[in-house]
Amino acid sequence: MAGVTRMESMWLQFILTCFVFSSYLRNGNAGITSTFIRSEYPSVDIPLENKVLAVPKGHNAPQQVHITQGDYDGRAVIISWVTADEPGTSKVQYGTSEKNFEFTAEGTVTNYTFYEYKSGYIHHCHVDGLEHDTKYYYKIGSGDSSREFWFITPPKINPDASYKFGIIGDLGQTFNSLSTLEHYMQSGGQASTAYQSWIWSAGNHEIDYMPYMGEVTPFKNYLQRYATPYYASKSSNPLWYAIRRASAHIIVLSSYSPFVKYTPQWMWLQEELKRVDREKTPWLIVLMHVPIYNSNEAHYMEGESMRAVYESWFVHYKVDVVFAGHVHAYERSYRISNIHYNVTSGEQYPIPDKSAPVYITVGDGGNQEGLAGRFRDPQPDYSAFREASYGAFDTGEIQNRTHALYHWNRNDDGKKMATDAFVLHNQYW
Amino acid sequence: MAGVTRMESMWLQFILTCFVFSSYLRNGNAGITSTFIRSEYPSVDIPLENKVLAVPKGHNAPQQVHITQGDYDGRAVIISWVTADEPGTSKVQYGTSEKNFEFTAEGTVTNYTFYEYKSGYIHHCHVDGLEHDTKYYYKIGSGDSSREFWFITPPKINPDASYKFGIIGDLGQTFNSLSTLEHYMQSGGQASTAYQSWIWSAGNHEIDYMPYMGEVTPFKNYLQRYATPYYASKSSNPLWYAIRRASAHIIVLSSYSPFVKYTPQWMWLQEELKRVDREKTPWLIVLMHVPIYNSNEAHYMEGESMRAVYESWFVHYKVDVVFAGHVHAYERSYRISNIHYNVTSGEQYPIPDKSAPVYITVGDGGNQEGLAGRFRDPQPDYSAFREASYGAFDTGEIQNRTHALYHWNRNDDGKKMATDAFVLHNQYW
Repeated sequence: MAGVTRMESMWLQFILTCFVFSSYLRNGNAGITSTFIRSEYPSVDIPLENKVLAVPKGHNAPQQVHITQGDYDGRAVIISWVTADEPGTSKVQYGTSEKNFEFTAEGTVTNYTFYEYKSGYIHHCHVDGLEHDTKYYYKIGSGDSSREFWFITPPKINPDASYKFGIIGDLGQTFNSLSTLEHYMQSGGQASTAYQSWIWSAGNHEIDYMPYMGEVTPFKNYLQRYATPYYASKSSNPLWYAIRRASAHIIVLSSYSPFVKYTPQWMWLQEELKRVDREKTPWLIVLMHVPIYNSNEAHYMEGESMRAVYESWFVHYKVDVVFAGHVHAYERSYRISNIHYNVTSGEQYPIPDKSAPVYITVGDGGNQEGLAGRFRDPQPDYSAFREASYGAFDTGEIQNRTHALYHWNRNDDGKKMATDAFVLHNQYW
Repeated sequence: MAGVTRMESMWLQFILTCFVFSSYLRNGNAGITSTFIRSEYPSVDIPLENKVLAVPKGHNAPQQVHITQGDYDGRAVIISWVTADEPGTSKVQYGTSEKNFEFTAEGTVTNYTFYEYKSGYIHHCHVDGLEHDTKYYYKIGSGDSSREFWFITPPKINPDASYKFGIIGDLGQTFNSLSTLEHYMQSGGQASTAYQSWIWSAGNHEIDYMPYMGEVTPFKNYLQRYATPYYASKSSNPLWYAIRRASAHIIVLSSYSPFVKYTPQWMWLQEELKRVDREKTPWLIVLMHVPIYNSNEAHYMEGESMRAVYESWFVHYKVDVVFAGHVHAYERSYRISNIHYNVTSGEQYPIPDKSAPVYITVGDGGNQEGLAGRFRDPQPDYSAFREASYGAFDTGEIQNRTHALYHWNRNDDGKKMATDAFVLHNQYW
């Protein structure tokens, strides 16, 4: 751990595992620990209702309330919720003072089936024209069953703006619950999903390819339930997109959508990288599900396909950091690249590269499958730090346009211990 | 060219460039040469009608008639055609003697729009329950405008059966014509597409991602116009599937669909490879658009992503040959593999591997963009033969379960010259 600096006071925070990305946490909720057991195969006879621990009282009361970032620059949100009894209203009332909802936005409602599962009524409401850095109160549902929450919009794009954000991982996925977030809400997180704006990145569990049930449309459940502001970044698909918040340009890629040359995701990323303006957003961050550098036996080299296509772009555009999940163990790379490898000649293995990003793989906050405890031996040259641990989470602190501090914390018997910490130097400034 | 044998008499034939795969050519039409100019960007104001040279006479006469293999083992076909004036009938009348159409099958008709283009009425009719190795006559359309053709069904699955098949490449693709096959038909091939059963493999031009026109659904045109028997091989998507014909098990992969671990294509291929029975079908052939081994500057290493995922399976299952197109130049590899490469240690480059397939890239039969004439220098160790040439095609001759002869022919001033020829030893027998 040469060159590592330990810091005690943190005022900007990352929380990263692998699935859900909360991009604005004023009231950061670090250290999420899930008690869910991952199930690769669905238990089709357990209705959703039995598993939701925190269903609110009242006829048709909004549940599973969550807010998603709604545009490119932080002046919109998408408010989503589910009603169980009837469609009800998709209206959001909102305003800047409590109990005085001066504005109204109209949303949409849908439902769908997946094999024998029938979804509730899923509402999405796009609320735009918001002011930056402002607290908004909002109300959904109707009558006695209505519910009120609030959120704070992010600051304006500013190269020196401070900004908090976090990422929560695939805590577990089962057929009927259909989303990590629902698990998160079940474990007591419902309140925070309704108060913070999130962005989403889909993983393998969200593919939901179940031909033996006749369900073969990838991401069918996920796409119904999780909205993203993809259109604001000229993406054609909710699975890949970008947002700019405060001093960061954040790009979300889809590991399980087509990404090779000529595909829509490739065409879009090529254009999106050109739109990055490091004068305005010094920090360029990429998120994906499958890690590109990971020396754990679990999912080893599953990221090679995407590495072969995008690594040279990451180096060319001097991406600061690439976050991934998928593997249930923490790992941080040095700044290395393998872009000179080719099947004919050239460098054979990753070599130090000052323009390369740091790759950080964060184990999820939930159950472990055992395998992720087995790292390849010896530790590869590209691997700077790695540890298999339960309930890990990450905290980071962007100080200004040139420096950020990054901590990985082991969640050990309920105590959070920083076990990897380093200074991230901005790749542009 | 050590170990190459030249043969003069051929009774089984491959014709391969890169897009269209004709899997049963009793009357093989070798040496297709296109005169079309490839257009990367659509010329939206040229209506389809102006470009079709061979529209049949008569009100609503069936045009663009083509037959697709219709099941797993060769007892069904899908007959497709377009009518321009009105939907008309989707019925196919057929039988084993001329002018006596004793059976009838009912098809479907659809049309669609793509930006300002409005398609004709597209008919697909699945005809099943056919006898093997039998000539069938069929009739489509109605009244004076009806048209009659015939086809011959393939022989039963048999490890020593003889079988002719060919592949025709992406001769050129423009927005309105929407398919290579239409170009092929325009250049005089219409008759042969109506008399032979084909299978299709989509390339980058078929993605048709055109966000500036609001068209962002990949393969939208292609999927409307080209049917495949994907369901017969338990595939969930027309873009990847398999058929068994005579002594060959033929697997078609989609280079531009998701293919990494956990995706539907990956899940399907894993199962399909287990279904291969080399006792019944000694020859295992894989088709894809993007070559995995190709030392041309054009599209160099674009196949790395798929190599990283599937190469170890190709070796494990002893695939005989992998055909690809995409690059406009012929190239043949030795039996090599790079499966021991990893980002930490191991072999650095492809090494001889007796279990590996031969990789054959066949340049298309049409226009050249110049670049494909530039091979990397020096020639990589894995490359056995390569030549950039116009109008190339391939012929092959499976002799029995143990041997096949393979010829690549340069089309030079109208003369076909075999310039690469070798004996393909079956990987199983």
